[in-house]
Amino acid sequence: MMLRVGVNGYGTIGKRVADALAAQPDMTVSGVAKTTPNFEATAAHRRGYAVHAIDDAAAFAAADVPVAGDLDDLVAASDVVIDCTPAGIGAQNREIYEAHDTPALYQGGEDADVADASFNARANYDEIANGDAEHVRVVSCNTTGLSRVLTPLDEVYGVEKTRATLVRRGGDPSQSDRGPINDILPDPVTVPSHHGPDVNTVLPDLAVDTMGVTVPATLMHLHSVNVTLESDADADAVRETLADESRVFVVPEHARVAGPGHLKELAKDAGRPRGDLWENCVWGASIAVEGRDLYFFQAIHQESDVVPENVDAVRAIAGDADAAESVVRTNRALGVGR
Amino acid sequence: MMLRVGVNGYGTIGKRVADALAAQPDMTVSGVAKTTPNFEATAAHRRGYAVHAIDDAAAFAAADVPVAGDLDDLVAASDVVIDCTPAGIGAQNREIYEAHDTPALYQGGEDADVADASFNARANYDEIANGDAEHVRVVSCNTTGLSRVLTPLDEVYGVEKTRATLVRRGGDPSQSDRGPINDILPDPVTVPSHHGPDVNTVLPDLAVDTMGVTVPATLMHLHSVNVTLESDADADAVRETLADESRVFVVPEHARVAGPGHLKELAKDAGRPRGDLWENCVWGASIAVEGRDLYFFQAIHQESDVVPENVDAVRAIAGDADAAESVVRTNRALGVGR
Amino acid sequence: MMLRVGVNGYGTIGKRVADALAAQPDMTVSGVAKTTPNFEATAAHRRGYAVHAIDDAAAFAAADVPVAGDLDDLVAASDVVIDCTPAGIGAQNREIYEAHDTPALYQGGEDADVADASFNARANYDEIANGDAEHVRVVSCNTTGLSRVLTPLDEVYGVEKTRATLVRRGGDPSQSDRGPINDILPDPVTVPSHHGPDVNTVLPDLAVDTMGVTVPATLMHLHSVNVTLESDADADAVRETLADESRVFVVPEHARVAGPGHLKELAKDAGRPRGDLWENCVWGASIAVEGRDLYFFQAIHQESDVVPENVDAVRAIAGDADAAESVVRTNRALGVGR
Amino acid sequence: MMLRVGVNGYGTIGKRVADALAAQPDMTVSGVAKTTPNFEATAAHRRGYAVHAIDDAAAFAAADVPVAGDLDDLVAASDVVIDCTPAGIGAQNREIYEAHDTPALYQGGEDADVADASFNARANYDEIANGDAEHVRVVSCNTTGLSRVLTPLDEVYGVEKTRATLVRRGGDPSQSDRGPINDILPDPVTVPSHHGPDVNTVLPDLAVDTMGVTVPATLMHLHSVNVTLESDADADAVRETLADESRVFVVPEHARVAGPGHLKELAKDAGRPRGDLWENCVWGASIAVEGRDLYFFQAIHQESDVVPENVDAVRAIAGDADAAESVVRTNRALGVGR
Ligand SMILES: NC(=O)c1ccc[n+]([C@@H]2O[C@H](COP(=O)([O-])OP(=O)(O)OC[C@H]3O[C@@H](n4cnc5c(N)ncnc54)[C@H](O)[C@@H]3O)[C@@H](O)[C@H]2O)c1
Ligand SMILES: NC(=O)c1ccc[n+]([C@@H]2O[C@H](COP(=O)([O-])OP(=O)(O)OC[C@H]3O[C@@H](n4cnc5c(N)ncnc54)[C@H](O)[C@@H]3O)[C@@H](O)[C@H]2O)c1
Ligand SMILES: NC(=O)c1ccc[n+]([C@@H]2O[C@H](COP(=O)([O-])OP(=O)(O)OC[C@H]3O[C@@H](n4cnc5c(N)ncnc54)[C@H](O)[C@@H]3O)[C@@H](O)[C@H]2O)c1
Ligand SMILES: NC(=O)c1ccc[n+]([C@@H]2O[C@H](COP(=O)([O-])OP(=O)(O)OC[C@H]3O[C@@H](n4cnc5c(N)ncnc54)[C@H](O)[C@@H]3O)[C@@H](O)[C@H]2O)c1
Repeated sequence: MMLRVGVNGYGTIGKRVADALAAQPDMTVSGVAKTTPNFEATAAHRRGYAVHAIDDAAAFAAADVPVAGDLDDLVAASDVVIDCTPAGIGAQNREIYEAHDTPALYQGGEDADVADASFNARANYDEIANGDAEHVRVVSCNTTGLSRVLTPLDEVYGVEKTRATLVRRGGDPSQSDRGPINDILPDPVTVPSHHGPDVNTVLPDLAVDTMGVTVPATLMHLHSVNVTLESDADADAVRETLADESRVFVVPEHARVAGPGHLKELAKDAGRPRGDLWENCVWGASIAVEGRDLYFFQAIHQESDVVPENVDAVRAIAGDADAAESVVRTNRALGVGR
Repeated sequence: MMLRVGVNGYGTIGKRVADALAAQPDMTVSGVAKTTPNFEATAAHRRGYAVHAIDDAAAFAAADVPVAGDLDDLVAASDVVIDCTPAGIGAQNREIYEAHDTPALYQGGEDADVADASFNARANYDEIANGDAEHVRVVSCNTTGLSRVLTPLDEVYGVEKTRATLVRRGGDPSQSDRGPINDILPDPVTVPSHHGPDVNTVLPDLAVDTMGVTVPATLMHLHSVNVTLESDADADAVRETLADESRVFVVPEHARVAGPGHLKELAKDAGRPRGDLWENCVWGASIAVEGRDLYFFQAIHQESDVVPENVDAVRAIAGDADAAESVVRTNRALGVGR
Repeated sequence: MMLRVGVNGYGTIGKRVADALAAQPDMTVSGVAKTTPNFEATAAHRRGYAVHAIDDAAAFAAADVPVAGDLDDLVAASDVVIDCTPAGIGAQNREIYEAHDTPALYQGGEDADVADASFNARANYDEIANGDAEHVRVVSCNTTGLSRVLTPLDEVYGVEKTRATLVRRGGDPSQSDRGPINDILPDPVTVPSHHGPDVNTVLPDLAVDTMGVTVPATLMHLHSVNVTLESDADADAVRETLADESRVFVVPEHARVAGPGHLKELAKDAGRPRGDLWENCVWGASIAVEGRDLYFFQAIHQESDVVPENVDAVRAIAGDADAAESVVRTNRALGVGR
Repeated sequence: MMLRVGVNGYGTIGKRVADALAAQPDMTVSGVAKTTPNFEATAAHRRGYAVHAIDDAAAFAAADVPVAGDLDDLVAASDVVIDCTPAGIGAQNREIYEAHDTPALYQGGEDADVADASFNARANYDEIANGDAEHVRVVSCNTTGLSRVLTPLDEVYGVEKTRATLVRRGGDPSQSDRGPINDILPDPVTVPSHHGPDVNTVLPDLAVDTMGVTVPATLMHLHSVNVTLESDADADAVRETLADESRVFVVPEHARVAGPGHLKELAKDAGRPRGDLWENCVWGASIAVEGRDLYFFQAIHQESDVVPENVDAVRAIAGDADAAESVVRTNRALGVGR
């Protein structure tokens, strides 16, 4: 039987999550809910999603977007809801989902305590699948990116300590009101940043100190990562360890990829929907080991890396598959790792 | 019989032209030629194009890209070649195409005298189709954008004079070495710019003065256009005139599109390949008439607006269809105007 | 006797206005008022201005900035107040100034009806000086820039119609939260923009249509200007007309100035305080005449072009000098035109 | 007797070095040499420097810049030459200086082997002063920034290992042709970057691994620094250690400085020439210690931090003062640390 999943909030994350759900063999999109009848609402309708108006149904009609119902209708029609509303709104929505006794996923913009547990497929799928949390937060794009590489490194070599500088895009490509314009901001100024503790919501025992910086770019985040390993390693071995991960793309030297601009071009050349890059992109040429100190650069596509994780999280809370099965199924349906 | 078309230069324009040709019912891609075996070469191979190495075939092999031949082989295998090499290289290549007696198209980065005539489907398709030019230049992205709106305005209302400021993107999204970073450059400083005379290569009698400005953005050009019409008009009538054009998209108010960032998002939401916008995007809300002075804003996607024009130009020089037929065929195959 | 002038709001405009007042032989700064005790408050104190705390005097003390009083104290100690608070706050402050019966200036971020009249030294000094407006708005940076060139052009050649595209910086260099990052926004989308009518607040009879665009840059605005003149002119004559203006800098070709980046460097090289450029910067190479259509590019330093205008406006409402006298006095004290 | 110092190359660094020399009580500028008679040449002349034309003297005359001689004349008139030409040109110039038997300084864009030794006032002044190197390279802006904080940290706590990510500005504010526009580039992609070994040219025994990133901003570099100390420390003690350094500015929390945009504003508010920040700017709020791992952010003004170092290097090779004396003299003359 198909799992009926509703998407509340149809923006950068919500639209991608809806498409990813629709591509799964075992799920169906029960509908999407949206506040504003802009071009994205029109697109949702054209893609065949039942559009639910959160506030002003009349405005949707005026924009030629038929309205399938309101948020309550959407929750009622769903086995699981994925909340993709702006940071902080998810916390307000939880009581709506609870009123319907409907399990829900939340995004990384919410505080960890919005949910009963946090989730990353590579780090703690089975824990969630075996636990009884019905309200689960999929960790943020940056935390997802760190968890995906630190988990295998810890398994294979042991991680003594991680230090990472997250050079963050100022806004997404369609956020025309975000800055900064010509600045490089320590963000937050206080060190370490909240990203390390956020990694600990899915990998509790890992020592990880992070520093955040925000810059005038929109395409991807860039992580400059140092991991002090517990055992000796060489760069080639680490490269293989990372290349073995289905959600890590080790960028080969001959591709001549200078940065996120080239990576996004590569994704568009590959015919990826919206030019998405669901995988961490680790520069092969950057992987270096000095003593037990491993270094590398990775680029994280903030708009899409959490998308396969949301799909897996649905299966984890629905108890439909174990981690390996779910990840394979999700990857195959989306084309992750190809 | 299928027209065999070769693409020399597989970069921003070349890759899109190749895909557009491949989508046509009456054309086939005889191969593409490339200088560097980077990620784009890999992608060309994966898309099934016969990759020809311009210089260093061994380097392609080393990057796992099988080599189908060299440039001479490509020209020999083609009924028409589309030259999509960087500005100025096309002029050097003409003698190669002539040696094979193969008709060729050139791009707008070349000087007008690279070819026997310049082309824009809306402005002068029939002239090219009925003439005997075998070397034809498809005008630049900006000139294409101006020609598409000025032709119908001139037909319907008469154009007394056009004054346009072209706010140009500094580089394409994958050009990581282009600037400026934090500047607004008169470019060129001298006025009027070369864009007006370039419009005159396809619309010889039109009075058009242009000023160029370059800014730190990559997504699209933005044109601020003033047209003094020869007859009275009102904004609604002009809006209809423009909306009737198959390669003009009049952006509705309810879409809430603030700029190129939203337009590209809209194209990605529509599932367009690479998020391309082949059409001029004219803001409906910006169309205004003061006396006989018409004003509007249009955004031009520099990476793709010339793509359907290249397809039409192939048919024009091959004598395979008239303007109306070709445009409909091209649009349908690509999804232009949908 | 020295005119005592208070500055309410010590940000981008207020700090420059305070310094400009302090440099005048006939004025003294009675104090400045500020809301937040940040580094600018410290600087105001170090420059010797009596800092008045608008809200939280204790916070200023904690930041080692001695507090001279509150806003009421400042107004009471001033013959004239210049309101340099953020757009919209000035309108709320008017009643405070009125309660003290103290004449006040407002900035261009306020609606025209905040004051009894609008002011630009070149356009309407004498009108203000001879009238009895006690609450006067100094027009915005863009409007100031347009008024300074249109006034002499109208006097010498007659202006039939002006069409200008204002390519606006997204934020000031110290505004780290402003965007856009990678976009070119029609702003406003509707045409013509409010800038034309704003010019009419000081030059009521001029026909001027403007279009606004906002881009990711911070240094200066760039205006692409077309003026249809009423009489014939040639580029050299226009160049002389503009060069004769003390607040217009015609940039010579041999300076090799590519844009605002170079202009700001030039100002720093000249030892200008804060690298300010009080003058319109018109590229000599861009001045062109086609028929009666004049074209040119000018760059406007949004942070400082209104500063000498504020000084003159004080004299205009205090009745202390006529236009010519005031402008010479202001220019000399600041170094405008040198 | 005054030391006569010539400056070859009058760009971003050269113009500042010339002004800094002119401000010293014990030095005089014998002249400056320049290739292009642009606005900077005009400014040099207005500042009273004897302008020497490297190539085309006639072009300088045409731009109204009197020519004092050529490069040979300048070297002949100088006791020491400071080469401030673009990276790589200094190496070509060395033979000219040698032919005149004139000691010379080079900048950090040159390879270390351009000179007999590399210099940073805090790291190795006395070594240079006591040695007999006559051709000395002042290390780059980033290396200067690292050396200034690592030297005292090593003296006080011992440095076990330093790991730093250097988020570099893409170009200087007046470089209108530099990118990237909307990208975050690993630069270089290979890790560790050359910056660590460059630190070792002045601090040979320090373990320091660096990673470089380039972003679309012009104002300053931002360093995200981790130092594993050899002994225990707490954040307050480190803060005091850094605050004691005359060329480190610990930014207080109450200043509310969000990033380089605010820092440059602060420098302009302080009346600094060109808004220069000669000091490392370390955010006080960012200084944190986890175990023996120290973290902090510092901003480095690439255009000016090497300027006082060049002045000191002149004295070091002229044997005129010891480190402490020279630094105090330089700082006092420029206003460093005030
Ligand atoms: N964009 C990213 O880079 C990114 C990455 C990972 C996680 N996230 C997280 O995902 C969540 C969504 O972010 P986004 O970037 O997709 O935001 P977004 O602004 O692009 O989309 C949010 C959507 O929610 C709608 N919305 C607004 N208020 C609402 C309300 N009260 N109820 C329902 N819908 C409402 C908006 O109309 C919009 O369609 C946030 O928690 C964010 O932190 C974002
Ligand atoms: N990018 C745009 O915005 C745009 C828009 C309209 C027209 N054009 C014009 O299209 C043409 C191509 O521009 P582009 O942006 O696609 O450039 P590009 O740099 O993206 O692609 C050019 C391709 O040609 C290859 N190449 C380089 N030297 C070559 C040579 N000697 N022979 C063959 N191939 C060579 C490069 O490897 C690359 O694959 C230019 O005339 C340009 O002015 C570009
Ligand atoms: N910055 C420009 O480019 C520019 C150019 C011309 C005109 N203006 C106009 O000048 C005015 C000031 O703009 P700005 O750029 O200097 O702004 P700003 O934000 O740089 O400075 C405003 C100052 O006012 C203070 N302030 C905030 N709320 C206040 C209040 N309630 N009472 C008193 N002070 C308060 C702030 O702390 C700040 O010091 C606006 O009307 C603006 O539109 C700005
Ligand atoms: N700008 C920085 O951020 C920075 C920081 C530290 C060190 N440096 C180093 O300082 C040196 C100078 O850099 P810059 O930024 O001042 O460069 P710049 O381009 O601003 O200035 C170089 C000057 O040298 C002149 N010049 C060019 N060719 C010349 C030649 N053949 N002979 C003499 N002069 C010539 C140019 O006209 C210009 O005036 C480089 O080694 C650079 O790496 C630069």
